[in-house]
Amino acid sequence: MNLKGKHFYNTADFTLKEINYLIDLAIQMKQKGYKQVMKNKSMALFFFNPSIRTRTSFASAVNKLGGLPIDLPTGGEGIFTLEFQDNVVMDKNTKEHIKEAASLVSRYCQIIGIRSSELITNKASVENASSWENQKKDTVLKGFMKYATVPVISMESNIYHPCQGLGDAMTIKEKLGNPKGKKYSLVWSYHPKALPMAVTNSQLISACQLGMDVILAHPKGWELDNEILKTITKTSKEAGGNFKITNSMNEAYNNADVICTKSWGALKYYGNWEEEKKIREQHKDWIVDKEKMVKTDQAIFMHCLPVRRNVEVTDEVIDSKNSVVIDEAENRMWAQMAIIKSLLNK
Amino acid sequence: MNLKGKHFYNTADFTLKEINYLIDLAIQMKQKGYKQVMKNKSMALFFFNPSIRTRTSFASAVNKLGGLPIDLPTGGEGIFTLEFQDNVVMDKNTKEHIKEAASLVSRYCQIIGIRSSELITNKASVENASSWENQKKDTVLKGFMKYATVPVISMESNIYHPCQGLGDAMTIKEKLGNPKGKKYSLVWSYHPKALPMAVTNSQLISACQLGMDVILAHPKGWELDNEILKTITKTSKEAGGNFKITNSMNEAYNNADVICTKSWGALKYYGNWEEEKKIREQHKDWIVDKEKMVKTDQAIFMHCLPVRRNVEVTDEVIDSKNSVVIDEAENRMWAQMAIIKSLLNK
Amino acid sequence: MNLKGKHFYNTADFTLKEINYLIDLAIQMKQKGYKQVMKNKSMALFFFNPSIRTRTSFASAVNKLGGLPIDLPTGGEGIFTLEFQDNVVMDKNTKEHIKEAASLVSRYCQIIGIRSSELITNKASVENASSWENQKKDTVLKGFMKYATVPVISMESNIYHPCQGLGDAMTIKEKLGNPKGKKYSLVWSYHPKALPMAVTNSQLISACQLGMDVILAHPKGWELDNEILKTITKTSKEAGGNFKITNSMNEAYNNADVICTKSWGALKYYGNWEEEKKIREQHKDWIVDKEKMVKTDQAIFMHCLPVRRNVEVTDEVIDSKNSVVIDEAENRMWAQMAIIKSLLNK
Repeated sequence: MNLKGKHFYNTADFTLKEINYLIDLAIQMKQKGYKQVMKNKSMALFFFNPSIRTRTSFASAVNKLGGLPIDLPTGGEGIFTLEFQDNVVMDKNTKEHIKEAASLVSRYCQIIGIRSSELITNKASVENASSWENQKKDTVLKGFMKYATVPVISMESNIYHPCQGLGDAMTIKEKLGNPKGKKYSLVWSYHPKALPMAVTNSQLISACQLGMDVILAHPKGWELDNEILKTITKTSKEAGGNFKITNSMNEAYNNADVICTKSWGALKYYGNWEEEKKIREQHKDWIVDKEKMVKTDQAIFMHCLPVRRNVEVTDEVIDSKNSVVIDEAENRMWAQMAIIKSLLNK
Repeated sequence: MNLKGKHFYNTADFTLKEINYLIDLAIQMKQKGYKQVMKNKSMALFFFNPSIRTRTSFASAVNKLGGLPIDLPTGGEGIFTLEFQDNVVMDKNTKEHIKEAASLVSRYCQIIGIRSSELITNKASVENASSWENQKKDTVLKGFMKYATVPVISMESNIYHPCQGLGDAMTIKEKLGNPKGKKYSLVWSYHPKALPMAVTNSQLISACQLGMDVILAHPKGWELDNEILKTITKTSKEAGGNFKITNSMNEAYNNADVICTKSWGALKYYGNWEEEKKIREQHKDWIVDKEKMVKTDQAIFMHCLPVRRNVEVTDEVIDSKNSVVIDEAENRMWAQMAIIKSLLNK
Repeated sequence: MNLKGKHFYNTADFTLKEINYLIDLAIQMKQKGYKQVMKNKSMALFFFNPSIRTRTSFASAVNKLGGLPIDLPTGGEGIFTLEFQDNVVMDKNTKEHIKEAASLVSRYCQIIGIRSSELITNKASVENASSWENQKKDTVLKGFMKYATVPVISMESNIYHPCQGLGDAMTIKEKLGNPKGKKYSLVWSYHPKALPMAVTNSQLISACQLGMDVILAHPKGWELDNEILKTITKTSKEAGGNFKITNSMNEAYNNADVICTKSWGALKYYGNWEEEKKIREQHKDWIVDKEKMVKTDQAIFMHCLPVRRNVEVTDEVIDSKNSVVIDEAENRMWAQMAIIKSLLNK
């Protein structure tokens, strides 16, 4: 399986065979060990948004492989305001073109990770937030992918979080054995803030790639982006599974093998959070609790973390033996190790 | 000596035999070398307060042992506002419960370091400062110690700085040979700001654990916390030494073998620094100078650094051959290497 | 060639033989590989100014040599306000004397890198900017060099950027073969902000050390510091080359083998940028474009990056096959590896 030179931007960019190879490789590295394929090598980690989990899991992954993670903070000090447009006269605020930035980092580091997610909910940012159509372009990720001469891994873009997706798929396979045909329900949860959809999109794609019977449940108004739903549907068919959307919590919980919960903001209120909030507050019953979990077929409980206890899920459920959230977080690291190893073709 | 799985929060939590083992191990690693017991491993460093010395000494210690230090800045961007209370509905500002945070970092990293010291003296912070009784709970440290599944090392809490204590003990043993019965005087010094007591507490405990004749000298009003003084007294008895408190500089300096100086804020003016300042200004004579040092038995001069020259100590004393402050700073690193090695039981 | 214990502050501090040794060593390490001379060692990186390129290239260099780069951010939080004056009563804002800071970091790390450049152009800083005569003292660099007991490498001071200089010299030798007698033109370029002169100074010194026919071209009013020009002239003579200053672009471009462009602020308007700006705006024709490049002898195009496209240089030139800017950036890393290896005498 040769993935050398590819970027890792969206799991849907990979064939089912490639995805299964990556999942199995991650499980194998976790169980049987791994070689130091990054000896003398380094990975540049560009965080255009802050991160704890992704940063720590990547730093640890790179270190286990013998390499050095190099953090490149890109925010506050305004020293790294990149230009992404071509043929532009750079006499304004941008100080460096992505063409130079991506090219030269490719000379210093053998692999590049980028986190760039604009959908954030604090007021100051919202006012400057660009439209969803603009965000879907994933300008930062696409810029690095265009000009880097080494593999680029998305550590979360505006629309995808592929490492979360792969780590979740690994966890499902680890816990359920062959997941084909088993019922995976991704259920929206209430949260006091409007969060991005990137994790949800990637989780659904991954569950579909496993050929699972996938249900997406959310209140009316919280529909995902249409184009991405088409990708998900197509992926599900290719893998011989099913994908269905419902507004019924019952339909999601009944006989489920996996309950994965995640909150996100309503697209139609995008950039207008105060308006959304009023309606959102009516859906506080979208919390994972024991009453709902008993309807499942002893489903495992998944969440990408961080989680708001007793808001998204009750203590009782997240502390139960069916909760796999910490294994899921750990598996992010192993999945990332498998991705790095494969993209470097080592 | 099996310290595997223990946390390193306060040197008084360890038996005299264990402490001496750690000191001797640190000296041995410094003199004879050490193995790379952290190969492929990493240490998470959570700095809830900024740090230069502790950060550099831990980074260097972990690197020498073959591992990777992973910095986890926890401040400014507000991305890591942890919930420490159990059974709470997290619909306010806290974004992640310590239970998840500590559990998952334990999957990425093999050891965790935490600095969390609230007693800081800039005005903005003082207004939000919690009471001393609250601070004594060391909520952050205790939270990590409760939920982490790997060893936690305190890199300074509200009340203890155990690595400073152990590094100082190592330095004393290195410089004086058998310190038992020798005279160790910890003398308060004037400083324009009210500093925490954590270093002082740990320095006193360590000197007592060495069975020394320990004198604590400070102006009236600068008494340490009563409960901690009881621990110190108890420790001194167990180790067969003495512990005495005085307001007389003469009593501290006369025939001392070690003069260690440190400034701290008066507990009774806690959160009321302006008030303390007026009284504090009367004690500018509490500076270590040559006139006082000649009364000692050619004592070594110790200070944890950073030090305000010609405020806490004169140039003449800190630049003299009896000053061991740089060795003392270096020994922090060796002490930390011994602690890491022992807690990992490697 | 024994450079052990030397600091790397200005390439002019080294003999021509030493400089050529370093250049050839860098080329050899790039082509034939290198040993892990920093195994178990670390390099402290003090950034008194933010940096992306220098940080990444040093981190990668240190990692390739088997060591750990330790970042020491020195800004925002005000935790590292150093005192550089001797015999001072430290009862004001400075918290630690350079004597202790440099001494103890020398115990934790085997080599120290310092970036400290005051000449910055945002308004807030300009108001606090010290005079050029003051800046020329390079207090921060000189302080570390005085008190560190391990080698100090300048990662850019107020007046020199010696690693850029050495990396450029390596690039010239790599591209042109024997550069002796070939024509190197450093041409000022327009830029919307007034930038430091450190890179320019070091680039000129390096080109002169190669014995090249060096032309410095800039508009009237943008003269470099007189004392530094004397050093450059002296260096040129010693190496058997030429050094000439002109205000004519034609003279610089005609038959040149190397066109290196760089922008900087006019010394006579120092601290008075608004005034400079008016005059500066008249010189927008100082851009590297194809019309000018055709006058050269198929010159290579050099720039230290970051570069403002279509302001300092046109897309056409920087994207041409004669542009070596990415190789030049990469060579910074190899040059730094050669410097580290030599200063550690490994």
